[in-house]
Amino acid sequence: MRIVVVAGGIGGARFLLGVRAAAPDAAITAVVNTGDDATMHGLRICPDLDSVMYTLGDGIDPVRGWGRRGESWVVKDELAAYGAEPTWFGLGDRDLATHLVRTRMLDAGYPLSEVTAALAQRWQPGVELVPMSDQRVETHVLVDDPGTGRRQAIHFQEWWVRHRAEPEPHAFVQVGVDVARPAPGVVEALAAADAVLLAPSNPVVSIGTVLGVPGLREALLASPARIVGLSPIVGGAPVRGMADRCLPAIGVEVSAEGVGRHYGARSAGGLLDAWLVHEDDTADVPGVDVRAVPLLMTDPAATQAMAQAALHAARA
Amino acid sequence: MRIVVVAGGIGGARFLLGVRAAAPDAAITAVVNTGDDATMHGLRICPDLDSVMYTLGDGIDPVRGWGRRGESWVVKDELAAYGAEPTWFGLGDRDLATHLVRTRMLDAGYPLSEVTAALAQRWQPGVELVPMSDQRVETHVLVDDPGTGRRQAIHFQEWWVRHRAEPEPHAFVQVGVDVARPAPGVVEALAAADAVLLAPSNPVVSIGTVLGVPGLREALLASPARIVGLSPIVGGAPVRGMADRCLPAIGVEVSAEGVGRHYGARSAGGLLDAWLVHEDDTADVPGVDVRAVPLLMTDPAATQAMAQAALHAARA
Repeated sequence: MRIVVVAGGIGGARFLLGVRAAAPDAAITAVVNTGDDATMHGLRICPDLDSVMYTLGDGIDPVRGWGRRGESWVVKDELAAYGAEPTWFGLGDRDLATHLVRTRMLDAGYPLSEVTAALAQRWQPGVELVPMSDQRVETHVLVDDPGTGRRQAIHFQEWWVRHRAEPEPHAFVQVGVDVARPAPGVVEALAAADAVLLAPSNPVVSIGTVLGVPGLREALLASPARIVGLSPIVGGAPVRGMADRCLPAIGVEVSAEGVGRHYGARSAGGLLDAWLVHEDDTADVPGVDVRAVPLLMTDPAATQAMAQAALHAARA
Repeated sequence: MRIVVVAGGIGGARFLLGVRAAAPDAAITAVVNTGDDATMHGLRICPDLDSVMYTLGDGIDPVRGWGRRGESWVVKDELAAYGAEPTWFGLGDRDLATHLVRTRMLDAGYPLSEVTAALAQRWQPGVELVPMSDQRVETHVLVDDPGTGRRQAIHFQEWWVRHRAEPEPHAFVQVGVDVARPAPGVVEALAAADAVLLAPSNPVVSIGTVLGVPGLREALLASPARIVGLSPIVGGAPVRGMADRCLPAIGVEVSAEGVGRHYGARSAGGLLDAWLVHEDDTADVPGVDVRAVPLLMTDPAATQAMAQAALHAARA
């Protein structure tokens, strides 16, 4: 069985754990958002790819949910002692080695997809880990400067980490997306898939960013597989992350139904064949097979059951 | 009083501590060897500049003599876990932040002299810390490959750190030196100096490398100040480092007299007005004011007394 999962970082990573457990013999391709990527201190940082790699490679910090277990922060403190900006980004010592290897390979001319595969050699995530694109696409957020009131675009990480998504986002802009293409293997994986799953990741800055890569949405829709989405909104609020800060900026209601309608029915030019909402939620999404199942990834068994429900919906 | 000290790494750094203590009101310029510099893991590393900066800024590990006090090695271990070469270089976490800031500034187009000044803002070494050149000059060592027997050039760090200077060096080559110039301020400092001191650093790969920069030796000789050298050889062996592995390659005897004659009398086209050898040593260097004084930098008082003896010889 061949499964393609479109995913963001922390939530996507945890969901992929469930998919891997639910389908241990399947060939799983994870197409991961790289719109959160940033260059800091000269290092190329890919937060979502790393969250997936560390989570599936059993290197993630389970409490924080991101970064490496047993992390230390010596380099970060030393950089701050030099006054080197940014000081607000959580750059751990263990994590930093990943960025060093990645940066060195990128500088040597390797595309991100090959760099990702090389890093994954160490972590053996058990899925094929693929960035959405080898071209650099970075999400910027249009906000009003709290001091001057002037509208400006800041990097997603600055908005998300430094400002904790507090400044109201007027729009999200994918810088570089116009010349981006799906990474090698993405279109092929979708064409050969038996199931396509949209992880319960942020619909705007994770799934939305992946779908914004020219050709990727078309490849998704051309897949012979059913496309099953899982709602990241439970009881009117995101399970994790700050999707509630992002959805209003694109005019989408913060609800399972709102996101389901935003994705839309495949039969009507949208994406979804099926839409999984949490068992206490309801959603009316015309043309879509809506199913209510437990969607809280509280432990490995619950996460696996959730992935099984998604795969079941993909077979229907 | 204006003092210029030509120096390598560990020994030069310690000697500079003594000069700073001996002449607390003097303007001291340290012209430091950068031939040991290397790029590893994409980071630009300047071992001698850092040894001087950390030592004078009270950040050095006093036991190892190089690198930062309280150092940790998380990034190094993680890089090794990725199989990233080289694994043999002592890249500490604290130290790494220095390299990150330096690399970022160099990549942004700042010359090494300005980068060095920016880093020194944090450490306040109390001397003006200047690289010998802003141009990249790297010492390579001509050795016979132990496996194939073929003669090849390897980077100084590979010879020194990885192979512990064991392969016999046939020659030292300063790659890039043909287009190098003294860093800004070096010629001016020498022209205005009241004393010029050659630290008891390695005569071949430290002092020799600095003097190899086109125009630097000429600027030294044009200085109105007396030039005083201090022997790094005591009792026929180097006090620290591996000068005994380097001197034979350039046909110089491993003795205070051998190095003194190699530097030569200024009156006869050489460098030295005065040559300080250790109290138990003798040296016959024609045309040079040879003085025997304690030259072991065993503690701050001894190091200060040694610097005082050098400054005294410069005044004579």
